[in-house]
Amino acid sequence: MSSADAGSVRVLGLGPGSVEQLTDEARHALERAEHVLGYHTYLARLPALEGKVLHGSDNGDELSRAHHALELAAAGAHVAIVSGGDPGVFGMAAAVFEAVERGPAAHRALDVAVVPGVTAMLAAAARLGAPLGNDFCAINLSDNLKPWSLIERRLELAAQAGFVIALYNPASRARPGQVHAAFERLRQNRAPYAPVAFAKAVGRTDEELELTTLGEADPAHADMRTLIVVGSEATRRIERPSGQPWLYTPRRVDGGRVDEDRADEAS
Amino acid sequence: MSSADAGSVRVLGLGPGSVEQLTDEARHALERAEHVLGYHTYLARLPALEGKVLHGSDNGDELSRAHHALELAAAGAHVAIVSGGDPGVFGMAAAVFEAVERGPAAHRALDVAVVPGVTAMLAAAARLGAPLGNDFCAINLSDNLKPWSLIERRLELAAQAGFVIALYNPASRARPGQVHAAFERLRQNRAPYAPVAFAKAVGRTDEELELTTLGEADPAHADMRTLIVVGSEATRRIERPSGQPWLYTPRRVDGGRVDEDRADEAS
Repeated sequence: MSSADAGSVRVLGLGPGSVEQLTDEARHALERAEHVLGYHTYLARLPALEGKVLHGSDNGDELSRAHHALELAAAGAHVAIVSGGDPGVFGMAAAVFEAVERGPAAHRALDVAVVPGVTAMLAAAARLGAPLGNDFCAINLSDNLKPWSLIERRLELAAQAGFVIALYNPASRARPGQVHAAFERLRQNRAPYAPVAFAKAVGRTDEELELTTLGEADPAHADMRTLIVVGSEATRRIERPSGQPWLYTPRRVDGGRVDEDRADEAS
Repeated sequence: MSSADAGSVRVLGLGPGSVEQLTDEARHALERAEHVLGYHTYLARLPALEGKVLHGSDNGDELSRAHHALELAAAGAHVAIVSGGDPGVFGMAAAVFEAVERGPAAHRALDVAVVPGVTAMLAAAARLGAPLGNDFCAINLSDNLKPWSLIERRLELAAQAGFVIALYNPASRARPGQVHAAFERLRQNRAPYAPVAFAKAVGRTDEELELTTLGEADPAHADMRTLIVVGSEATRRIERPSGQPWLYTPRRVDGGRVDEDRADEAS
């Protein structure tokens, strides 16, 4: 196949809510696409889709959607697959590469690339202050594809490590009870005063933020659009004269090598 | 202070490298700013700064830079503080809220907000495939502000949890040896075949990607512009007829509740 005939797959993140959180790179990749595949709800959020072939599908069809995109690209089309947030974080990117690995050898020669985006925990953290200011982890609470015992073990080790913990997919209609079990496990391994936030629909018009503590949190407040941030014992809450308090996790932990107020800055 | 006189602070992430990875929200916040504060290197990357007062400072002056921004805002100015990547991940956001907490009570009434961005691990993961496709953590290897013993404990627990591990700030001139100690600790807790990637200057013209394994990695290849992704034992490498292999971590772990190829998708 000459490069003139070659198709492509771009796996895009739309950011967690607002179109304002789309990067230029994602917008350009979307503009170039002839076919756009994704969960119906995500397609409905896209700007400027005129002239493109849309392939909406139900949530949960990740692997077949990925196969479909690869087949279209193998036939010479330019394809975008859209995820919410960042496609590499519990989104479509892993499904696409799983489909590549399981598919025909020719698919390994395809032009497939992932375009990063703002994942839900970064958007939620920004609205809350800076709760991810020290080491942290992200755990997908769904046991659809992994055993619940593994999730509980990860929660326990993450709490023991002192990580701030971002919980994705905390609950759905099919799994209303697990978030309660998760909080029980966290409470056995972290002090009750650790700040907790439920961030729902961040960046959208119906955004809701609830600040509480590990001891007082009601896990029933989580639904499938909620990202939960479980602060560490070091996470601090700054009260304000009006408006929502800020949460942040200090960069400093007693015992660091440098005494002054300086640190390497990451990029 | 009336709202007409009120200043503001916006803590922005520029994305890891290319201006293409800036979100619209970050660009608009930058456009509105009268003063822009940041590490010299980040200021040099910014588009369209005409008419703004620039305050470049050295890396490591985070807390004094944050105090300065708050003082300017308290005097009525609109201020942007810039970080690379996402400001909430080992960037300026935690320093700003630390400065608020330590500063005069009046600063708690200021209009301070964080604008999220694409952090280095998401950009690196996108270039590599989908290594963050299952649960993962981010650890800042610098012991400037926390004890090395805590970092080693976190590495050990993260490896035991089966997290894919993103290592920020793996090495600098002042700390050339710690990344070796970190790999030693990881090798005690994870199989040598686990894929490892060194992602240097992702999104910039001098980007370099090195794919190796935990057993064969040479930690001396890391510098202060490197993000290291340590795959789990489940992370897979897909060889290609030409070009760099892809890494991805499957969403599936044996024992999940749903047998078919479906999963909740996160946003």
